[in-house]
Amino acid sequence: MTVKVSSKAVAQEILDKYDNFLFDCDGVLWRESSLLPKVAETLKMLRKHNKNLIFVTNNATKSRLQYSKKFEKFGLTVSESEVFGSSYASAVYLRDILKLPKDKKVWVEGADGLEIELQDAGYQTLGGTHLPALDRPLNMEDKTDPINNIDPEVGAVVVGLDPKINYHRIAVTMQYLLNPNIYFVATNPDSTFPGKGALLPGAGMVVKAVETCVNREGIICGKPSKGMMDAIIKSQNIDKSRSIMIGDRFDTDILFGLNNGLSTLLVLSGIETPETLEALDPKQKPTYYANKLGDLYEYIH
Amino acid sequence: MTVKVSSKAVAQEILDKYDNFLFDCDGVLWRESSLLPKVAETLKMLRKHNKNLIFVTNNATKSRLQYSKKFEKFGLTVSESEVFGSSYASAVYLRDILKLPKDKKVWVEGADGLEIELQDAGYQTLGGTHLPALDRPLNMEDKTDPINNIDPEVGAVVVGLDPKINYHRIAVTMQYLLNPNIYFVATNPDSTFPGKGALLPGAGMVVKAVETCVNREGIICGKPSKGMMDAIIKSQNIDKSRSIMIGDRFDTDILFGLNNGLSTLLVLSGIETPETLEALDPKQKPTYYANKLGDLYEYIH
Repeated sequence: MTVKVSSKAVAQEILDKYDNFLFDCDGVLWRESSLLPKVAETLKMLRKHNKNLIFVTNNATKSRLQYSKKFEKFGLTVSESEVFGSSYASAVYLRDILKLPKDKKVWVEGADGLEIELQDAGYQTLGGTHLPALDRPLNMEDKTDPINNIDPEVGAVVVGLDPKINYHRIAVTMQYLLNPNIYFVATNPDSTFPGKGALLPGAGMVVKAVETCVNREGIICGKPSKGMMDAIIKSQNIDKSRSIMIGDRFDTDILFGLNNGLSTLLVLSGIETPETLEALDPKQKPTYYANKLGDLYEYIH
Repeated sequence: MTVKVSSKAVAQEILDKYDNFLFDCDGVLWRESSLLPKVAETLKMLRKHNKNLIFVTNNATKSRLQYSKKFEKFGLTVSESEVFGSSYASAVYLRDILKLPKDKKVWVEGADGLEIELQDAGYQTLGGTHLPALDRPLNMEDKTDPINNIDPEVGAVVVGLDPKINYHRIAVTMQYLLNPNIYFVATNPDSTFPGKGALLPGAGMVVKAVETCVNREGIICGKPSKGMMDAIIKSQNIDKSRSIMIGDRFDTDILFGLNNGLSTLLVLSGIETPETLEALDPKQKPTYYANKLGDLYEYIH
């Protein structure tokens, strides 16, 4: 049975039981360009109690450093080392789980944040945002076209949300993945994300496009997969029994906690509602729910 | 049991039993830029016997007229009315099966051949190849961006192979399809096609990309779906029991024949081999097989 955060006792219990607080960001800390009520106070309170804060995002277009700057805009101070993005998780997965040798190159179908994380992990990247030829139409007859210059040193392809996706990029990415010896890693499965006033195509759109033409499935690294947790554990050896994942979505955040043996707190300030919580399969229910993250602070004080 | 075309008697049987000969083109009539042996002679022989020839292609980038010009390059004379492409099938499906009113507009995520067929069917098309703004990056803040000018008169979206696919086009296509009252039609499911020296992404890649971000499935019109057969029947009231589908692929051509109650002839001049035929589920086997289409002519003469 999911316990509602509706008293000081429950809020205090959460404060006592957990050392590591993992947060989804959009819908938990902020919505569009507005910080949610009492978020700053809650984070400050948790820091005062020496809690370990970890911000877990499936945003694959930004590196950890780029994403930490987003917090500044809301007046929140968060360090790069507290941020775990799906681009970082993909780089860690390649390096530490798949153990791709450092002399192998990585073909990127994604944005610059993904390139930065792969380069930080020690890999030379190809494709991505730094090959202007890919912005032009595919030309099979042009010997200089990237499709006619497949690099035999590529050992992995990483696919994420790519605002520059086009036919040329998909066609060249496909040539690499037709080689079954080349790893296929995908940052995250999100099919959409809320843009400024409209729902927009997410990384899952790019991943499915590539998967379709190569008839292979990518290894997904973002929430709710184990890949993201592996990246966190590699970096900070947290005790899962004293960790709680806080999020606004069942299918990524809460599932990420459940799949990885963490307690979970659903906040109703984003995607889910009391009705969708009610309708959820009992085995998938979160440990706690609250109207908003700030309720933790409000009940304690 | 699949009968091999290996004698004059079998070739003559096919000539006697069928009035309507439906052909896939690539891998049956030609491969890349070469006409296959004795194809011209076989077609001429069939015409001499007053057979009805129908050329069925999943190529969605060309209109029937554009595609009939491809035959000329090989010295074959084929009229527009003998060609059934998946772009035409999609237009016929919208008009005759879904009965989309003519005052509704159609948003196109595809090439100009698809636009031409939709316009020939009486619809005003939007998107596609004639909106230069879609070639530029998506800009939510620009009031003139197509994403901020969703046309309420659009009644259907048709998706096909689009060499100009980009994030902007997918994002705007998505806005239309988030409206469940707008039909979602897809030209064909082919995930790849053989380009000049490389396997390239097919219409299925574009269809899956769109399906993923709208969480809906498109109605597929090309082979092996019933949509293509509906288009043929609407145009020529053929007797299925006296019709044979000739193709080089199980999953589109032979299945198209089987699904629609036609006899089938597999030719081994394209995708399939004696080994893949041997391994096939008995329920999916073709009626006949031949090394090549030209064997029909060679055994008769």
